[in-house]
Amino acid sequence: MRTIAENDHILIIYKDKSYFKKVVTGQAFHGKGGILDYASLIGKRYGVRYGQYEVYEPTTEDTIMYGLRRETQIVFPKDSAFICLKLSLRNGSRIVEIGTGSGALTYLFSKVVGPDGAVVSFELEERHYKNAKKNIGRFAEWDNVEIRNENIEGYVPESTFDAAFIDVREPWLCLEAAGRLVRDSAPVGMIVPTANQISELLKGLETGFGMVEVIEILLRKYKTVAERVRPTDRMVAHTGYLVFARKLDQGAGE
Amino acid sequence: MRTIAENDHILIIYKDKSYFKKVVTGQAFHGKGGILDYASLIGKRYGVRYGQYEVYEPTTEDTIMYGLRRETQIVFPKDSAFICLKLSLRNGSRIVEIGTGSGALTYLFSKVVGPDGAVVSFELEERHYKNAKKNIGRFAEWDNVEIRNENIEGYVPESTFDAAFIDVREPWLCLEAAGRLVRDSAPVGMIVPTANQISELLKGLETGFGMVEVIEILLRKYKTVAERVRPTDRMVAHTGYLVFARKLDQGAGE
Amino acid sequence: MRTIAENDHILIIYKDKSYFKKVVTGQAFHGKGGILDYASLIGKRYGVRYGQYEVYEPTTEDTIMYGLRRETQIVFPKDSAFICLKLSLRNGSRIVEIGTGSGALTYLFSKVVGPDGAVVSFELEERHYKNAKKNIGRFAEWDNVEIRNENIEGYVPESTFDAAFIDVREPWLCLEAAGRLVRDSAPVGMIVPTANQISELLKGLETGFGMVEVIEILLRKYKTVAERVRPTDRMVAHTGYLVFARKLDQGAGE
Amino acid sequence: MRTIAENDHILIIYKDKSYFKKVVTGQAFHGKGGILDYASLIGKRYGVRYGQYEVYEPTTEDTIMYGLRRETQIVFPKDSAFICLKLSLRNGSRIVEIGTGSGALTYLFSKVVGPDGAVVSFELEERHYKNAKKNIGRFAEWDNVEIRNENIEGYVPESTFDAAFIDVREPWLCLEAAGRLVRDSAPVGMIVPTANQISELLKGLETGFGMVEVIEILLRKYKTVAERVRPTDRMVAHTGYLVFARKLDQGAGE
Repeated sequence: MRTIAENDHILIIYKDKSYFKKVVTGQAFHGKGGILDYASLIGKRYGVRYGQYEVYEPTTEDTIMYGLRRETQIVFPKDSAFICLKLSLRNGSRIVEIGTGSGALTYLFSKVVGPDGAVVSFELEERHYKNAKKNIGRFAEWDNVEIRNENIEGYVPESTFDAAFIDVREPWLCLEAAGRLVRDSAPVGMIVPTANQISELLKGLETGFGMVEVIEILLRKYKTVAERVRPTDRMVAHTGYLVFARKLDQGAGE
Repeated sequence: MRTIAENDHILIIYKDKSYFKKVVTGQAFHGKGGILDYASLIGKRYGVRYGQYEVYEPTTEDTIMYGLRRETQIVFPKDSAFICLKLSLRNGSRIVEIGTGSGALTYLFSKVVGPDGAVVSFELEERHYKNAKKNIGRFAEWDNVEIRNENIEGYVPESTFDAAFIDVREPWLCLEAAGRLVRDSAPVGMIVPTANQISELLKGLETGFGMVEVIEILLRKYKTVAERVRPTDRMVAHTGYLVFARKLDQGAGE
Repeated sequence: MRTIAENDHILIIYKDKSYFKKVVTGQAFHGKGGILDYASLIGKRYGVRYGQYEVYEPTTEDTIMYGLRRETQIVFPKDSAFICLKLSLRNGSRIVEIGTGSGALTYLFSKVVGPDGAVVSFELEERHYKNAKKNIGRFAEWDNVEIRNENIEGYVPESTFDAAFIDVREPWLCLEAAGRLVRDSAPVGMIVPTANQISELLKGLETGFGMVEVIEILLRKYKTVAERVRPTDRMVAHTGYLVFARKLDQGAGE
Repeated sequence: MRTIAENDHILIIYKDKSYFKKVVTGQAFHGKGGILDYASLIGKRYGVRYGQYEVYEPTTEDTIMYGLRRETQIVFPKDSAFICLKLSLRNGSRIVEIGTGSGALTYLFSKVVGPDGAVVSFELEERHYKNAKKNIGRFAEWDNVEIRNENIEGYVPESTFDAAFIDVREPWLCLEAAGRLVRDSAPVGMIVPTANQISELLKGLETGFGMVEVIEILLRKYKTVAERVRPTDRMVAHTGYLVFARKLDQGAGE
């Protein structure tokens, strides 16, 4: 049975609030439910109440939402989970990401491809590159992520990738690179916030790609009172439009 | 470079239609774009046009949507991808599923937990059990799935599970078993089609669980014409409500 | 008490199907629930079962959905009701419509502005003009609609309008005309199917208009079984984007 | 040309904010765009800029959203406009409302049925009754609304109503009254916040009603930048479920 250990990340719940913390002897959590001394938790069970707090082992989603330090808009779980499926990622996959941002999607890719897979991610902005590197260093379970603070144009990989994802302002400028780096028939994904960008992307995808799809995902939460089942009052109306395609050599098939 | 081989599953695209087929020498695909002789594809590249057809290597999603034989309503990709994230599945996870159905979610679990993980799935209905077993036998990449045609009540596993998922008509009757089989703090998920069932589930989750969430996911597709960006005319309005919680020992934390 | 009369339009319901019909002596409705002789209904009550059929007095929505003959995509009730509110239409309003189409919105405008109001609608396509004229002639309750088979450019009305609505392919070309025809501060509405058109419209609305809004409305139906409350399986994903603005003289306010 | 007059309600826009105000000589609007002396507006045009402000004549929706004093959750325009259409309201209609609340829907009903129509609305809570009465007194254009601080059970109207709307906590308790007060075949509408209430309502509607529908309406706003067409970040996820039916005498139709 896995118990709470020094340096573990933990999720503390008090009423409707979540606190993502690190267990460090000598430190404590000060909340509305009182003081929770981290040392007192060591060796104790997860999924138990301590005083007025519930303490859980963080999931991948908890880490994305509350653990990673954000310097950019991140790709949210409703979208990132779906992206992993559309890109057909699994144990051992090799994925190239163009636009690391804060590394939220990079982190999820790392979880999904596992120790036998590889994530190579490009980020031009030095500040984001450094932040993403720290996030991955702090939270990744396996050493399967390489973040590169350079332009993808000159990049020559040892072997091709199984999939690519592009999250930059002008993703159509990266389509050629993505197509070059992935193997035949590979899925390629993109995320863009505006419909104008969808339009540009669709033009770019006319060459070198097939099976183009544009999708948006809406997530609605419900209140959790058995006698009053109903959605919450407000929801996120938009994060981004997802675009997917597959590498297609439009030339001769013979 | 991976090329098309005998017995490969392939995805043939003709205009807007997808055909999930198996490459068998001596057989051929007969479609509106003409006859495509499977033997002629062997050793050729994926992601290329053959006559009027595009031929792709199927993704996980293609297999779920077009490969698996359905005898029940399946859990669709928009939901199943999100379920994997909420259950924090990754390389090496052990997941127990109550209600295999046609095995669509089972298949995705298998992909996500990889060769070091394990999926144990229970299905009482013999007909569904047999169909799911065939689906997994035909499509699973690793030997990490065990489907059991028995009631979960008497089941004693070698070790606890990292997560559980319940997809049966009265999931509240399985909460105790799910709680018993997973480790402390583990995420548990459920899917139900009706709001009345949400209400019953919420009552059941009051004991033994915390961090309860009820969520629905809507997916909207867009047409892929650059000059006319707009959603498709119709969409799926409902598949199911997703319910998530974490195992919580509500007793003493000492 | 209003009873069924010769030449009345009636709505016949058989199970989940609706039939919009006209009561004509000597004719009958032939459906799966048997033959319903129209003459036998005359003088009888609405909202009653006749054999296996329920017979109702059609509402405005029934008439829009089942009565009007459609030669074009119509503006659907979920949108048209909201348009009437955004245009602040009420008893006595004068509204100008550019693009009559099949007259579905024209018909609703007629209902809302009543006998003291006026609807002037422009349709260039002669075939649509004729069809809309027939629809209005057949169903309008009051003689308050004028449909004109001509370009709006040369049109000089007796007095200004309280609101305008534009439903043509390039609505930005009609903004100047709409602005000229409505009174100060008047609301103007538009509907467009694509995001590209939103973009063009927003540029056009920069001059002469304020309070610009872009809105889409989604309507989801639920099954009506008390024990199984849940949305229907499928829904309309898109009809059009609604754009609203108010006439604004951007010059001096003195 | 209608100009701004003493005691007019006006809508002042400053950047993205709306201010619903009354023109009173001797008073002024103090906002971030400076002081706007109301007396200086009298006799001036609507739809013009005054200093940094735009001044518009309020629409029905502006009045509902910014004018009425709310003591309860109101029925919002996305729902109320649709309700008017489903209830087939038009010039001259007589509508009975059970549950006046703050009178937002009552006010819209008044606008739609016009001077020849009638709105009779019941509110048991004296505080809400008084507030609604004030709201209607202040904003209604015609004297066609009667609000009654009494139970509907004992009410005997001069003549039947064309439609009924119920907005109370347990609307199923009012179905008999609604059925009694409306004419044959008349549409009846309800709004409830929870799925549990839908379930109760559906049971109640089994007797005396036909053509039952359950609907929810979602409204999504878009940003109004031509180069960046995209939904706003957040939206209202839920106001209420709308239920509609028609009065049906389930006995013999002869």
